[in-house]
Amino acid sequence: MSQLDLIASIAGLCTTASFFPQVIKVYRTRHTKDLSLVMYIIFSCGVFLWFIYGAFMYSWPIMIANGVTFILSAYILAMKLRYR
Amino acid sequence: MSQLDLIASIAGLCTTASFFPQVIKVYRTRHTKDLSLVMYIIFSCGVFLWFIYGAFMYSWPIMIANGVTFILSAYILAMKLRYR
Repeated sequence: MSQLDLIASIAGLCTTASFFPQVIKVYRTRHTKDLSLVMYIIFSCGVFLWFIYGAFMYSWPIMIANGVTFILSAYILAMKLRYR
Repeated sequence: MSQLDLIASIAGLCTTASFFPQVIKVYRTRHTKDLSLVMYIIFSCGVFLWFIYGAFMYSWPIMIANGVTFILSAYILAMKLRYR
């Protein structure tokens, strides 16, 4: 693996994994007042489109990273809609 | 521009632009209790690494999208540290 591939892998791991703590926080507290509804609507659409892009490119890394991020983001969005 | 380029452009626009509503909400309310500190630390590191990756790849789209997202994410992180 080249140094560039390594940077991209760590970057992708960070941007995807970062949503786990927010999911855990929302799951535990059921508090979503300070989260922006519009952010999670637009962000979820964005990562879904990245997933579609990855599928067309036959890129498993893009599909997996964005697929996981989409699930986490959609969960936060659903909780925001339920507990605002 | 191919259909794939178009999907990637809209996807990138969404994932970057989505942070604006959260920045505006935090700026207006000064409330950050429900935001995850760990999320914004890891996410900011991730987009910064994507920016570095874009620089090594001489890719302006990757640099601009992640540079802007980094600024927005770092602002939310700073507000979270100040008003938690």
